[in-house]
Amino acid sequence: MSIILSGDRPTGHLHLGHYVGSLRKRLELQEQGHEIYIMIANIQALTDYYDNPSKIHDNIYNVLEDYLAVGLDPNNSTLFLQSSVQALFEMTVYFMNFVTLSRVQRNPTVKTELKQKSFKNNITCGFLCYPISQAADILAFQTDIVPVGKDQEPMIEQANEVADQFNSIYGCSVFRNCQVLLGETSKLVGIDGKAKASKSLNNAIFLTDSNEVIKEKVYSMYTDPNHIRVQDPGNVENNVVFQYLDAFYEDFEHLADLKEHYRKGGLGDVAIKALLYDVLLKFFEPIRERRGKINEKDLKEILHKGNDAANAKAFQTMKAMREVMCVKDY
Amino acid sequence: MSIILSGDRPTGHLHLGHYVGSLRKRLELQEQGHEIYIMIANIQALTDYYDNPSKIHDNIYNVLEDYLAVGLDPNNSTLFLQSSVQALFEMTVYFMNFVTLSRVQRNPTVKTELKQKSFKNNITCGFLCYPISQAADILAFQTDIVPVGKDQEPMIEQANEVADQFNSIYGCSVFRNCQVLLGETSKLVGIDGKAKASKSLNNAIFLTDSNEVIKEKVYSMYTDPNHIRVQDPGNVENNVVFQYLDAFYEDFEHLADLKEHYRKGGLGDVAIKALLYDVLLKFFEPIRERRGKINEKDLKEILHKGNDAANAKAFQTMKAMREVMCVKDY
Repeated sequence: MSIILSGDRPTGHLHLGHYVGSLRKRLELQEQGHEIYIMIANIQALTDYYDNPSKIHDNIYNVLEDYLAVGLDPNNSTLFLQSSVQALFEMTVYFMNFVTLSRVQRNPTVKTELKQKSFKNNITCGFLCYPISQAADILAFQTDIVPVGKDQEPMIEQANEVADQFNSIYGCSVFRNCQVLLGETSKLVGIDGKAKASKSLNNAIFLTDSNEVIKEKVYSMYTDPNHIRVQDPGNVENNVVFQYLDAFYEDFEHLADLKEHYRKGGLGDVAIKALLYDVLLKFFEPIRERRGKINEKDLKEILHKGNDAANAKAFQTMKAMREVMCVKDY
Repeated sequence: MSIILSGDRPTGHLHLGHYVGSLRKRLELQEQGHEIYIMIANIQALTDYYDNPSKIHDNIYNVLEDYLAVGLDPNNSTLFLQSSVQALFEMTVYFMNFVTLSRVQRNPTVKTELKQKSFKNNITCGFLCYPISQAADILAFQTDIVPVGKDQEPMIEQANEVADQFNSIYGCSVFRNCQVLLGETSKLVGIDGKAKASKSLNNAIFLTDSNEVIKEKVYSMYTDPNHIRVQDPGNVENNVVFQYLDAFYEDFEHLADLKEHYRKGGLGDVAIKALLYDVLLKFFEPIRERRGKINEKDLKEILHKGNDAANAKAFQTMKAMREVMCVKDY
């Protein structure tokens, strides 16, 4: 059994992209009985949204509710809020002592995100150091496995480097290395077919969408612009509907037949969209059932219990760190 | 009455340079009845000595003992250890969200220290962000006055800038600005006359030095290399003995006469050194008497009590910060 850490920034409700990219993998891992920590990363979110903190605050319960709705079980997984684990702040500050500016500036994930954002020379210290903060998250829980997308791999390398540096500087074995677990489908395309599904691009199907909204989104999905008449041969590869069917339709044999049919011509977009809509309705059924049973008091208790468990775990690591760093309580 | 914050990095026993540069000012402020916080800055010291943490740890009690010996009174001043105030880590992380890399790189104190050290491109994130950590120290206690040397003025400016930015971003008045209080004699020269007294240059008289050592140091002080014979006119200005007499001899009239005499010629170095030695013995008397009464159990209790008081104060500020940042407990 391994220790797993995963999480999300609470910037909105989760969508099918999150489900395919990470929630599904977490459910599998939960099924296997691992020790799982799932973090609502409000402190990390504040590095981007420090000037809009209520957005972060308002979405903490939304994300937690989505976790419970998809089947993450607080009796099996520790669901907690980053800001409630004090040790994470302290560990971040300690790690900053030996991670150099040039090292974080070379981090590929930071570089990519810098290009996307408009920081330029105004990059904040918080954004620049977020790989160090993330290393603290990973190392605090003695994590073995981090299920992330390929774009996040450099963050795991950074965490392992911090672990090795710490062990070497203090002549100890407080930290171990962790491994990346990549999902089979790590990215789900947006309904417009242009990029990965994301809230900011408004091209995602949310776990909270109503049937009407889902239907509208499915029927507006990008398919194949050259597949004009039903009898025309159609392209399956860049066809959003087939990509969603790949991700959610479990009758693989039937799906293979459909793809064959679509490629040859004679299968219309409306037919495959109707199928996808049906498939999604079935997918949403247990999610909605679980969501219906949640009330705010439960959410509060679940988070409280998760925070306590996460705190206890991180405190143990912090204690070991402080010991080798000669930082003592008085 | 004002709130005062001051402190020292625990890298060794304190010396007369510390006394003249800041301890004396703190004693005056204590006498005036202000709310005083004096911090043993072990976390800040770790930014430089992260690879030698036992050096820091071993000097915590040494510094505390020196505080008590010079007359800082735990019943009037809060003497505490930086690492014991959890809120400081959290505040540092929050402030990093809006202080830019270019801003800390422009900080004159950081620039100067960078030149002195051999970081080059390997500057650590911890060192680079230490003005932010120092802003957290200052702001956590709602400090009005920081008694520091002129070289530290940019740090206070940085803290005030952070205070203003925070208040402006969150539309609040959680923080106020603080003022620098410069000492009359902010730097004491080393016994070699070459630079300011410092442990690393081995040119300081320590508060723990024995009479023999003090005598040796006084008699080896740099005076005036052209004052070869007693009857030669002597230079008073760059003469270390007179600089120490300026700082410690309270009979100003007699001192003015001595200077006059020395300038004209006819007053030998041995005579002024003998006087300084006498003056210092008197200065050390109450310090040694207080030191003789301290035992380790007292130190532990004093630090514990100080940590509790500092924690309570910083926690209030942290609570106000979290409130406007919508970071809540669950």
